[in-house]
Amino acid sequence: MMSQDYDQDKLAQAVADGIYARDNTAKAMGIEILEAKATSTIGRMTVREDMLNFHGTCHGGVLYALAGGVLAYAINADNRAAVAQAGTINYTRPAHPGEVLTATAQMVNQAGRSGIYDVVITNEKQQTVALFRGQSSKIKGESIAGLNAKFGIEDQ
Amino acid sequence: MMSQDYDQDKLAQAVADGIYARDNTAKAMGIEILEAKATSTIGRMTVREDMLNFHGTCHGGVLYALAGGVLAYAINADNRAAVAQAGTINYTRPAHPGEVLTATAQMVNQAGRSGIYDVVITNEKQQTVALFRGQSSKIKGESIAGLNAKFGIEDQ
Amino acid sequence: MMSQDYDQDKLAQAVADGIYARDNTAKAMGIEILEAKATSTIGRMTVREDMLNFHGTCHGGVLYALAGGVLAYAINADNRAAVAQAGTINYTRPAHPGEVLTATAQMVNQAGRSGIYDVVITNEKQQTVALFRGQSSKIKGESIAGLNAKFGIEDQ
Amino acid sequence: MMSQDYDQDKLAQAVADGIYARDNTAKAMGIEILEAKATSTIGRMTVREDMLNFHGTCHGGVLYALAGGVLAYAINADNRAAVAQAGTINYTRPAHPGEVLTATAQMVNQAGRSGIYDVVITNEKQQTVALFRGQSSKIKGESIAGLNAKFGIEDQ
Repeated sequence: MMSQDYDQDKLAQAVADGIYARDNTAKAMGIEILEAKATSTIGRMTVREDMLNFHGTCHGGVLYALAGGVLAYAINADNRAAVAQAGTINYTRPAHPGEVLTATAQMVNQAGRSGIYDVVITNEKQQTVALFRGQSSKIKGESIAGLNAKFGIEDQ
Repeated sequence: MMSQDYDQDKLAQAVADGIYARDNTAKAMGIEILEAKATSTIGRMTVREDMLNFHGTCHGGVLYALAGGVLAYAINADNRAAVAQAGTINYTRPAHPGEVLTATAQMVNQAGRSGIYDVVITNEKQQTVALFRGQSSKIKGESIAGLNAKFGIEDQ
Repeated sequence: MMSQDYDQDKLAQAVADGIYARDNTAKAMGIEILEAKATSTIGRMTVREDMLNFHGTCHGGVLYALAGGVLAYAINADNRAAVAQAGTINYTRPAHPGEVLTATAQMVNQAGRSGIYDVVITNEKQQTVALFRGQSSKIKGESIAGLNAKFGIEDQ
Repeated sequence: MMSQDYDQDKLAQAVADGIYARDNTAKAMGIEILEAKATSTIGRMTVREDMLNFHGTCHGGVLYALAGGVLAYAINADNRAAVAQAGTINYTRPAHPGEVLTATAQMVNQAGRSGIYDVVITNEKQQTVALFRGQSSKIKGESIAGLNAKFGIEDQ
């Protein structure tokens, strides 16, 4: 691969802006993207009343949607379009209404078209709420059309 | 274990009614529980605009939330309170806005406190959209307080 | 896709024979392939002393190797070369030395290059010992070179 | 929990010695435990001819058995007996006969009886061969009987 003359973190931020503009789910859930870098992404969400299960704690499906929501930014950070292929979540601690959750995604491995990314969800006390591992697959095209040209990326 | 003189499917339905009354997430997502039996549960949801990812298809996190949403009913069907411990989803086909998705949960194994449940999400053409496998853990108490007495269940 | 004029189960058996001839791990573990069909494969293995963990029961890694061993036959049954991409196993019951374990693989979904296959491991009492779900990916070429020509398969 | 006056890494090493003495699978596979600490364990194995699949590379089941083999040491490092409940492996790169593989296990989370541990398998070039995540569950008793008394551990 050629050396990359562009700023990969700036590209990741531009991709994140482009994704967020069309990310209905993130907006509906109140997920904010605090940081979007080449190999890590941080999102934040407050647990709302409409996100609770019948025990009165944050629904496990919502926790997954938060992790998977941030994952989408992480796997597209290089502007090579990617989709989630699979995800696994382990629940370690309940989250309660009003709590602010932080989801931190890290690229663990990217080989060929396949990627492995971890997301850790923590609460305000830095306690781990859930551990997520996702698998991604690169498809054809740019994540956000036009960004390659803007960043002077000729071939990916 | 004693022979059970009560109707296990009726118990499952009563538990489902009790869960649904407090299941904010299911209501917010428009998930309906079509069938709640002792070893299987069927839920249904229409893909809405606020459930889309930036590709314009149903967000993978929403698909998980649908599967995990139905899972909660399945793992509590015997009124022994259970929580989801982990879940894995594999995405096989995109779902589009307006499509009606059906999530069918089946108990695969229940041994001691640990359970394994599969959920298949299909679209209106019976095509598989996602395959989910969840792990549950029994905690103390009834899922819905009072149902054991109502069904004449003495000891679980 | 064209209608297939050849016997898909016979192809699966021919592929299995070709794989087994070179499957050092299956031979070393004493895995026998009892049945190899287009959408299901059955393998069998006896738990040996050198397969035990420090508790004196069958090592979880060995159980996975049995499931993953049978998986290889299942994902190649159509003679389109495939590799395992990921696997998850849930342990439900210990297996003891001398027990004969049966691993039954079923194709759950095959879409494009990606497949999902389930393997259930049971003991002689038909009790479930472990539940496995594997993900496969088609690569280029035949699983066993020459079988396509022999079966009159022109294009896959 | 009381402050611990004993050396937790020394305990982990003593547990590892006790496990290894009875770990038939590790011995049969030629797995060596290079390091056993309270929160990390390192194992090593050379890929042998009897560990190959029909492609001539290390069998995925063997890679899992290596990861799961090292996991057993990691989840028992505090001498509270633990068993593996589930494991997931993602394959990222083939391993070849003669290659020396290193499996490094790290405790990610331990809450109540449930633990999450990651294992990374790398080859001699420090390339990632597989990524494993395991779930453990504490059962009653010591991992290695007598070690608590020897280390002056009164209550766990």
